[in-house]
Amino acid sequence: MAYPGFGAYGGYSGQMPGMQMTVGQPMPGAVPNMPHGGYSGYSAYSGTYSAAADPMWTYFAAIAGQDGEVDAEELQRCLTQSGISGTYSPFSLETCRIMISLMDRDYTGKMGFNEFKELWAALNAWKQNFMMIDQDRSGTVELHELGQVIAAMGYRLSSQTLTAIVKRYSKNGKIFFDDYVACCVKLRALTDFFRRRDNMQQGYVNFVYDDFLQCTMAI
Amino acid sequence: MAYPGFGAYGGYSGQMPGMQMTVGQPMPGAVPNMPHGGYSGYSAYSGTYSAAADPMWTYFAAIAGQDGEVDAEELQRCLTQSGISGTYSPFSLETCRIMISLMDRDYTGKMGFNEFKELWAALNAWKQNFMMIDQDRSGTVELHELGQVIAAMGYRLSSQTLTAIVKRYSKNGKIFFDDYVACCVKLRALTDFFRRRDNMQQGYVNFVYDDFLQCTMAI
Repeated sequence: MAYPGFGAYGGYSGQMPGMQMTVGQPMPGAVPNMPHGGYSGYSAYSGTYSAAADPMWTYFAAIAGQDGEVDAEELQRCLTQSGISGTYSPFSLETCRIMISLMDRDYTGKMGFNEFKELWAALNAWKQNFMMIDQDRSGTVELHELGQVIAAMGYRLSSQTLTAIVKRYSKNGKIFFDDYVACCVKLRALTDFFRRRDNMQQGYVNFVYDDFLQCTMAI
Repeated sequence: MAYPGFGAYGGYSGQMPGMQMTVGQPMPGAVPNMPHGGYSGYSAYSGTYSAAADPMWTYFAAIAGQDGEVDAEELQRCLTQSGISGTYSPFSLETCRIMISLMDRDYTGKMGFNEFKELWAALNAWKQNFMMIDQDRSGTVELHELGQVIAAMGYRLSSQTLTAIVKRYSKNGKIFFDDYVACCVKLRALTDFFRRRDNMQQGYVNFVYDDFLQCTMAI
Protein backbone atom coordinates (compact mmCIF):
# COMPACT_ATOMS: atom_id res chain seq x y z
CA MET A 1 0.00 0.00 0.00
CA ALA A 2 1.24 3.43 -0.84
CA TYR A 3 1.27 5.34 2.38
CA PRO A 4 -1.75 7.55 2.83
CA GLY A 5 -0.74 11.11 3.31
CA PHE A 6 2.88 10.41 3.84
CA GLY A 7 5.34 12.83 2.40
CA ALA A 8 2.58 15.36 2.13
CA TYR A 9 3.83 18.76 3.06
CA GLY A 10 0.87 20.03 1.16
CA GLY A 11 1.93 19.08 -2.32
CA TYR A 12 4.42 21.89 -2.52
CA SER A 13 8.09 21.17 -2.86
CA GLY A 14 9.05 24.68 -3.82
CA GLN A 15 9.44 27.67 -1.56
CA MET A 16 8.15 31.18 -1.64
CA PRO A 17 11.16 33.34 -2.43
CA GLY A 18 9.56 36.49 -1.13
CA MET A 19 9.17 34.83 2.25
CA GLN A 20 12.70 33.55 2.37
CA MET A 21 14.09 37.02 2.10
CA THR A 22 12.56 37.83 5.43
CA VAL A 23 14.77 35.27 7.12
CA GLY A 24 18.00 36.95 6.24
CA GLN A 25 16.42 40.31 6.81
CA PRO A 26 14.02 40.00 9.75
CA MET A 27 10.91 41.96 9.04
CA PRO A 28 8.04 41.27 11.43
CA GLY A 29 4.64 41.47 9.84
CA ALA A 30 6.02 41.12 6.34
CA VAL A 31 3.34 40.90 3.71
CA PRO A 32 3.22 37.38 2.24
CA ASN A 33 4.59 37.01 -1.26
CA MET A 34 6.05 40.49 -1.33
CA PRO A 35 8.99 40.33 -3.77
CA HIS A 36 11.06 42.29 -1.34
CA GLY A 37 14.35 43.30 -2.87
CA GLY A 38 14.93 40.24 -5.01
CA TYR A 39 15.67 36.62 -4.24
CA SER A 40 19.21 36.63 -2.96
CA GLY A 41 18.40 34.05 -0.31
CA TYR A 42 17.07 31.53 -2.76
CA SER A 43 20.27 29.71 -3.62
CA ALA A 44 20.54 28.67 0.01
CA TYR A 45 17.98 25.97 -0.68
CA SER A 46 19.66 24.25 -3.58
CA GLY A 47 22.08 21.34 -3.30
CA THR A 48 25.35 21.89 -1.49
CA TYR A 49 26.28 25.16 0.08
CA SER A 50 28.35 26.59 2.87
CA ALA A 51 26.34 27.21 6.01
CA ALA A 52 28.33 30.36 6.68
CA ALA A 53 27.26 31.82 3.34
CA ASP A 54 23.62 31.05 3.97
CA PRO A 55 21.70 34.14 5.06
CA MET A 56 19.50 31.91 7.19
CA TRP A 57 22.54 30.68 9.07
CA THR A 58 23.56 34.12 10.31
CA TYR A 59 20.06 34.69 11.40
CA PHE A 60 19.61 31.28 13.04
CA ALA A 61 23.02 31.34 14.73
CA ALA A 62 22.29 34.66 16.42
CA ILE A 63 19.37 33.12 18.27
CA ALA A 64 20.70 29.60 18.68
CA GLY A 65 23.82 30.76 20.48
CA GLN A 66 26.83 28.59 21.20
CA ASP A 67 25.15 25.19 21.09
CA GLY A 68 23.96 25.78 17.52
CA GLU A 69 20.46 24.60 18.34
CA VAL A 70 17.18 26.25 19.25
CA ASP A 71 14.68 25.14 21.87
CA ALA A 72 10.96 25.93 21.63
CA GLU A 73 11.25 29.44 23.10
CA GLU A 74 14.12 30.29 20.75
CA LEU A 75 12.28 28.84 17.79
CA GLN A 76 9.30 31.01 18.65
CA ARG A 77 11.55 34.06 18.61
CA CYS A 78 13.16 32.97 15.33
CA LEU A 79 9.82 32.52 13.64
CA THR A 80 8.26 35.68 15.04
CA GLN A 81 11.23 37.80 14.03
CA SER A 82 11.37 36.22 10.59
CA GLY A 83 7.87 37.41 9.88
CA ILE A 84 6.91 34.05 8.44
CA SER A 85 3.44 34.40 9.94
CA GLY A 86 2.93 37.47 7.79
CA THR A 87 -0.29 39.19 8.77
CA TYR A 88 -1.32 36.20 10.89
CA SER A 89 -0.66 36.01 14.62
CA PRO A 90 2.79 34.73 15.61
CA PHE A 91 3.09 31.05 16.50
CA SER A 92 2.24 30.08 20.06
CA LEU A 93 4.83 28.41 22.23
CA GLU A 94 2.79 25.22 22.18
CA THR A 95 2.89 25.07 18.40
CA CYS A 96 6.64 25.70 18.48
CA ARG A 97 7.07 22.82 20.89
CA ILE A 98 5.18 20.56 18.49
CA MET A 99 7.44 21.78 15.68
CA ILE A 100 10.51 20.87 17.73
CA SER A 101 9.10 17.43 18.48
CA LEU A 102 8.55 16.81 14.76
CA MET A 103 12.31 16.86 14.20
CA ASP A 104 13.57 15.84 17.61
CA ARG A 105 14.31 12.14 17.19
CA ASP A 106 16.89 12.09 19.99
CA TYR A 107 14.66 13.89 22.50
CA THR A 108 16.99 16.77 23.25
CA GLY A 109 14.11 19.25 23.00
CA LYS A 110 16.15 21.24 20.46
CA MET A 111 16.47 21.71 16.72
CA GLY A 112 19.63 22.18 14.63
CA PHE A 113 20.09 24.31 11.55
CA ASN A 114 19.28 21.67 8.94
CA GLU A 115 16.07 20.75 10.74
CA PHE A 116 15.20 24.41 11.02
CA LYS A 117 15.50 24.83 7.26
CA GLU A 118 13.43 21.72 6.63
CA LEU A 119 10.77 23.08 8.94
CA TRP A 120 10.94 26.45 7.24
CA ALA A 121 10.19 24.95 3.84
CA ALA A 122 7.28 22.98 5.27
CA LEU A 123 5.87 26.05 7.02
CA ASN A 124 5.91 28.02 3.80
CA ALA A 125 4.06 25.27 1.98
CA TRP A 126 1.46 24.95 4.74
CA LYS A 127 1.04 28.69 4.85
CA GLN A 128 0.48 28.84 1.11
CA ASN A 129 -2.25 26.21 1.45
CA PHE A 130 -3.91 28.20 4.22
CA MET A 131 -3.79 31.43 2.25
CA MET A 132 -5.42 29.77 -0.71
CA ILE A 133 -8.50 29.22 1.43
CA ASP A 134 -8.32 32.34 3.54
CA GLN A 135 -8.63 34.66 0.60
CA ASP A 136 -10.00 37.57 2.59
CA ARG A 137 -7.03 37.25 5.03
CA SER A 138 -9.38 37.07 8.01
CA GLY A 139 -6.87 34.79 9.76
CA THR A 140 -9.35 31.94 10.05
CA VAL A 141 -10.89 29.30 7.82
CA GLU A 142 -14.03 27.22 8.16
CA LEU A 143 -14.03 23.74 9.68
CA HIS A 144 -14.97 21.96 6.48
CA GLU A 145 -12.20 23.82 4.66
CA LEU A 146 -9.57 22.34 6.99
CA GLY A 147 -10.97 18.92 6.15
CA GLN A 148 -10.60 19.70 2.47
CA VAL A 149 -7.01 20.89 2.91
CA ILE A 150 -6.06 17.75 4.81
CA ALA A 151 -7.58 15.61 2.08
CA ALA A 152 -5.84 17.71 -0.59
CA MET A 153 -2.51 17.11 1.17
CA GLY A 154 -2.95 13.43 0.38
CA TYR A 155 -4.21 12.15 3.73
CA ARG A 156 -6.96 9.68 3.00
CA LEU A 157 -8.91 9.61 6.24
CA SER A 158 -12.41 8.59 7.21
CA SER A 159 -14.95 11.34 7.72
CA GLN A 160 -15.07 10.48 11.43
CA THR A 161 -11.33 11.00 11.76
CA LEU A 162 -11.47 14.26 9.83
CA THR A 163 -14.26 15.45 12.12
CA ALA A 164 -12.27 14.55 15.21
CA ILE A 165 -9.22 16.42 13.95
CA VAL A 166 -11.10 19.49 12.78
CA LYS A 167 -12.98 19.84 16.08
CA ARG A 168 -9.80 19.55 18.06
CA TYR A 169 -8.10 22.44 16.30
CA SER A 170 -11.04 24.83 16.15
CA LYS A 171 -11.90 27.81 18.30
CA ASN A 172 -15.46 29.12 18.26
CA GLY A 173 -16.18 27.24 15.08
CA LYS A 174 -13.16 28.58 13.20
CA ILE A 175 -9.63 27.38 12.49
CA PHE A 176 -6.88 29.90 13.21
CA PHE A 177 -3.56 29.85 11.38
CA ASP A 178 -1.55 28.85 14.45
CA ASP A 179 -3.84 25.89 15.16
CA TYR A 180 -3.87 24.89 11.52
CA VAL A 181 -0.07 24.71 11.54
CA ALA A 182 -0.06 22.77 14.81
CA CYS A 183 -2.48 20.35 13.16
CA CYS A 184 -0.28 19.99 10.05
CA VAL A 185 2.84 19.40 12.15
CA LYS A 186 1.14 16.74 14.27
CA LEU A 187 -0.34 14.99 11.26
CA ARG A 188 3.09 14.88 9.70
CA ALA A 189 4.88 13.78 12.88
CA LEU A 190 2.40 11.04 13.77
CA THR A 191 2.37 9.75 10.20
CA ASP A 192 6.20 9.71 10.11
CA PHE A 193 6.20 7.85 13.37
CA PHE A 194 3.61 5.32 12.22
CA ARG A 195 5.27 4.76 8.87
CA ARG A 196 8.68 4.07 10.43
CA ARG A 197 7.11 1.16 12.29
CA ASP A 198 5.05 -0.10 9.36
CA ASN A 199 7.86 -2.12 7.78
CA MET A 200 5.65 -3.66 5.13
CA GLN A 201 3.90 -0.35 4.39
CA GLN A 202 0.56 -2.04 4.82
CA GLY A 203 -1.21 0.60 6.85
CA TYR A 204 -1.23 -1.14 10.20
CA VAL A 205 1.26 -1.47 13.03
CA ASN A 206 1.46 -3.63 16.12
CA PHE A 207 2.34 -1.26 18.94
CA VAL A 208 3.76 -2.07 22.32
CA TYR A 209 2.34 0.25 24.98
CA ASP A 210 5.66 1.82 25.96
CA ASP A 211 6.62 2.62 22.37
CA PHE A 212 3.14 3.95 21.65
CA LEU A 213 3.36 6.35 24.59
CA GLN A 214 6.93 7.37 23.85
CA CYS A 215 6.01 8.71 20.45
CA THR A 216 2.53 10.04 21.00
CA MET A 217 3.35 11.77 24.27
CA ALA A 218 6.36 13.52 22.79
CA ILE A 219 4.30 15.21 20.07
CA MET B 1 -1.11 -8.51 32.01
CA ALA B 2 -2.40 -5.95 34.42
CA TYR B 3 -2.45 -2.69 32.56
CA PRO B 4 0.56 -0.52 33.25
CA GLY B 5 -0.49 2.79 34.61
CA PHE B 6 -4.13 2.40 33.81
CA GLY B 7 -6.61 3.78 36.24
CA ALA B 8 -3.89 5.87 37.71
CA TYR B 9 -5.19 9.28 38.58
CA GLY B 10 -2.26 9.48 40.90
CA GLY B 11 -3.27 6.87 43.41
CA TYR B 12 -5.82 9.14 44.96
CA SER B 13 -9.47 8.26 44.89
CA GLY B 14 -10.50 10.81 47.45
CA GLN B 15 -10.94 14.51 46.99
CA MET B 16 -9.69 17.52 48.83
CA PRO B 17 -12.71 18.98 50.59
CA GLY B 18 -11.13 22.38 51.03
CA MET B 19 -10.74 22.63 47.27
CA GLN B 20 -14.25 21.51 46.51
CA MET B 21 -15.68 24.35 48.51
CA THR B 22 -14.16 26.76 46.07
CA VAL B 23 -16.34 25.36 43.31
CA GLY B 24 -19.59 26.35 44.93
CA GLN B 25 -18.04 29.59 46.09
CA PRO B 26 -15.64 30.78 43.39
CA MET B 27 -12.56 32.18 45.01
CA PRO B 28 -9.70 32.79 42.60
CA GLY B 29 -6.29 32.24 44.09
CA ALA B 30 -7.65 30.18 46.96
CA VAL B 31 -4.95 28.70 49.13
CA PRO B 32 -4.84 24.94 48.60
CA ASN B 33 -6.16 22.80 51.42
CA MET B 34 -7.67 25.75 53.26
CA PRO B 35 -10.62 24.34 55.26
CA HIS B 36 -12.74 27.19 54.11
CA GLY B 37 -16.05 27.25 55.89
CA GLY B 38 -16.55 23.52 56.27
CA TYR B 39 -17.27 20.77 53.80
CA SER B 40 -20.81 21.40 52.70
CA GLY B 41 -19.97 20.54 49.10
CA TYR B 42 -18.61 17.14 49.96
CA SER B 43 -21.79 15.12 49.78
CA ALA B 44 -22.08 16.06 46.13
CA TYR B 45 -19.48 13.43 45.35
CA SER B 46 -21.08 10.45 46.96
CA GLY B 47 -23.48 8.06 45.30
CA THR B 48 -26.76 9.42 44.03
CA TYR B 49 -27.71 13.06 44.25
CA SER B 50 -29.80 15.69 42.59
CA ALA B 51 -27.84 17.81 40.15
CA ALA B 52 -29.86 20.86 41.15
CA ALA B 53 -28.78 20.46 44.79
CA ASP B 54 -25.13 20.14 43.85
CA PRO B 55 -23.23 23.39 44.46
CA MET B 56 -21.02 22.54 41.51
CA TRP B 57 -24.06 22.37 39.26
CA THR B 58 -25.12 25.98 39.88
CA TYR B 59 -21.62 27.03 39.22
CA PHE B 60 -21.16 24.90 36.10
CA ALA B 61 -24.59 25.75 34.63
CA ALA B 62 -23.91 29.48 34.80
CA ILE B 63 -20.97 29.11 32.46
CA ALA B 64 -22.28 26.22 30.36
CA GLY B 65 -25.42 28.08 29.34
CA GLN B 66 -28.40 26.50 27.66
CA ASP B 67 -26.68 23.52 26.06
CA GLY B 68 -25.47 22.29 29.45
CA GLU B 69 -21.96 21.70 28.17
CA VAL B 70 -18.70 23.62 28.21
CA ASP B 71 -16.19 23.99 25.40
CA ALA B 72 -12.48 24.60 26.00
CA GLU B 73 -12.84 28.37 26.45
CA GLU B 74 -15.70 27.93 28.91
CA LEU B 75 -13.82 25.21 30.76
CA GLN B 76 -10.88 27.56 31.11
CA ARG B 77 -13.18 30.17 32.66
CA CYS B 78 -14.76 27.57 34.96
CA LEU B 79 -11.39 26.38 36.21
CA THR B 80 -9.89 29.84 36.54
CA GLN B 81 -12.87 31.16 38.49
CA SER B 82 -12.99 28.09 40.68
CA GLY B 83 -9.49 28.80 41.90
CA ILE B 84 -8.47 25.17 41.50
CA SER B 85 -5.03 26.26 40.37
CA GLY B 86 -4.56 27.88 43.77
CA THR B 87 -1.37 29.89 43.77
CA TYR B 88 -0.31 28.37 40.45
CA SER B 89 -0.96 30.03 37.11
CA PRO B 90 -4.41 29.37 35.61
CA PHE B 91 -4.66 26.62 33.02
CA SER B 92 -3.81 27.53 29.45
CA LEU B 93 -6.39 27.13 26.71
CA GLU B 94 -4.31 24.36 25.18
CA THR B 95 -4.39 22.35 28.41
CA CYS B 96 -8.16 22.91 28.63
CA ARG B 97 -8.56 21.57 25.12
CA ILE B 98 -6.63 18.45 26.08
CA MET B 99 -8.90 18.10 29.12
CA ILE B 100 -11.97 18.28 26.87
CA SER B 101 -10.52 15.68 24.53
CA LEU B 102 -9.93 13.31 27.46
CA MET B 103 -13.69 13.02 27.96
CA ASP B 104 -14.95 13.81 24.49
CA ARG B 105 -15.66 10.39 23.02
CA ASP B 106 -18.25 11.70 20.54
CA TYR B 107 -16.04 14.55 19.28
CA THR B 108 -18.41 17.38 20.04
CA GLY B 109 -15.57 19.44 21.51
CA LYS B 110 -17.62 19.89 24.68
CA MET B 111 -17.94 18.46 28.17
CA GLY B 112 -21.09 17.78 30.19
CA PHE B 113 -21.55 18.11 33.94
CA ASN B 114 -20.71 14.53 34.89
CA GLU B 115 -17.49 14.65 32.89
CA PHE B 116 -16.67 17.99 34.46
CA LYS B 117 -16.95 16.48 37.93
CA GLU B 118 -14.85 13.50 36.94
CA LEU B 119 -12.20 15.86 35.61
CA TRP B 120 -12.42 17.93 38.76
CA ALA B 121 -11.64 14.95 40.97
CA ALA B 122 -8.70 13.99 38.77
CA LEU B 123 -7.34 17.53 38.78
CA ASN B 124 -7.39 17.65 42.54
CA ALA B 125 -5.51 14.39 42.76
CA TRP B 126 -2.91 15.50 40.22
CA LYS B 127 -2.54 18.81 41.98
CA GLN B 128 -1.96 17.10 45.31
CA ASN B 129 0.80 15.03 43.71
CA PHE B 130 2.41 18.16 42.31
CA MET B 131 2.26 19.98 45.61
CA MET B 132 3.93 17.08 47.36
CA ILE B 133 7.00 17.71 45.22
CA ASP B 134 6.77 21.48 44.94
CA GLN B 135 7.07 22.03 48.66
CA ASP B 136 8.37 25.57 48.37
CA ARG B 137 5.41 26.46 46.09
CA SER B 138 7.74 27.80 43.41
CA GLY B 139 5.27 26.65 40.77
CA THR B 140 7.78 24.35 39.09
CA VAL B 141 9.36 20.98 39.73
CA GLU B 142 12.53 19.37 38.41
CA LEU B 143 12.57 17.12 35.37
CA HIS B 144 13.54 13.99 37.29
CA GLU B 145 10.75 14.68 39.76
CA LEU B 146 8.13 14.51 37.02
CA GLY B 147 9.58 11.15 36.05
CA GLN B 148 9.22 10.00 39.64
CA VAL B 149 5.62 11.20 39.83
CA ILE B 150 4.69 9.39 36.62
CA ALA B 151 6.25 6.20 37.94
CA ALA B 152 4.50 6.68 41.29
CA MET B 153 1.17 6.99 39.45
CA GLY B 154 1.65 3.42 38.32
CA TYR B 155 2.92 3.97 34.78
CA ARG B 156 5.71 1.50 34.19
CA LEU B 157 7.65 3.08 31.36
CA SER B 158 11.17 2.71 30.01
CA SER B 159 13.67 5.39 30.95
CA GLN B 160 13.78 6.48 27.31
CA THR B 161 10.03 7.05 27.27
CA LEU B 162 10.14 8.91 30.57
CA THR B 163 12.91 11.12 29.18
CA ALA B 164 10.91 11.85 26.03
CA ILE B 165 7.85 12.81 28.05
CA VAL B 166 9.66 14.93 30.57
CA LYS B 167 11.55 16.88 27.90
CA ARG B 168 8.36 17.58 26.01
CA TYR B 169 6.63 19.19 28.97
CA SER B 170 9.55 21.23 30.30
CA LYS B 171 10.36 24.89 29.88
CA ASN B 172 13.89 26.07 30.59
CA GLY B 173 14.65 22.86 32.41
CA LYS B 174 11.63 23.05 34.72
CA ILE B 175 8.12 21.62 34.73
CA PHE B 176 5.33 24.12 35.34
CA PHE B 177 2.02 23.13 36.89
CA ASP B 178 0.01 23.75 33.72
CA ASP B 179 2.33 21.56 31.64
CA TYR B 180 2.40 18.90 34.32
CA VAL B 181 -1.40 18.69 34.21
CA ALA B 182 -1.40 18.62 30.39
CA CYS B 183 1.05 15.74 30.64
CA CYS B 184 -1.13 13.85 33.16
CA VAL B 185 -4.25 14.35 31.03
CA LYS B 186 -2.53 13.11 27.88
CA LEU B 187 -1.01 10.11 29.64
CA ARG B 188 -4.43 9.21 30.92
CA ALA B 189 -6.22 9.79 27.61
CA LEU B 190 -3.70 7.88 25.50
CA THR B 191 -3.64 5.01 27.96
CA ASP B 192 -7.46 4.88 28.01
CA PHE B 193 -7.45 4.86 24.26
CA PHE B 194 -4.82 2.13 24.00
CA ARG B 195 -6.47 -0.03 26.63
CA ARG B 196 -9.87 0.09 24.94
CA ARG B 197 -8.29 -1.48 21.89
CA ASP B 198 -6.20 -4.00 23.81
CA ASN B 199 -8.98 -6.57 24.19
CA MET B 200 -6.75 -9.20 25.72
CA GLN B 201 -5.03 -6.66 27.99
CA GLN B 202 -1.66 -7.89 26.81
CA GLY B 203 0.06 -4.56 26.36
CA TYR B 204 0.10 -4.41 22.58
CA VAL B 205 -2.40 -3.33 19.96
CA ASN B 206 -2.59 -3.68 16.21
CA PHE B 207 -3.51 -0.23 14.92
CA VAL B 208 -4.92 0.71 11.57
CA TYR B 209 -3.53 4.07 10.41
CA ASP B 210 -6.89 5.87 10.35
CA ASP B 211 -7.85 4.78 13.85
CA PHE B 212 -4.38 5.61 15.13
CA LEU B 213 -4.64 9.16 13.78
CA GLN B 214 -8.21 9.63 14.91
CA CYS B 215 -7.32 9.14 18.53
CA THR B 216 -3.84 10.60 18.72
CA MET B 217 -4.69 13.72 16.72
CA ALA B 218 -7.72 14.46 18.87
CA ILE B 219 -5.68 14.60 22.09
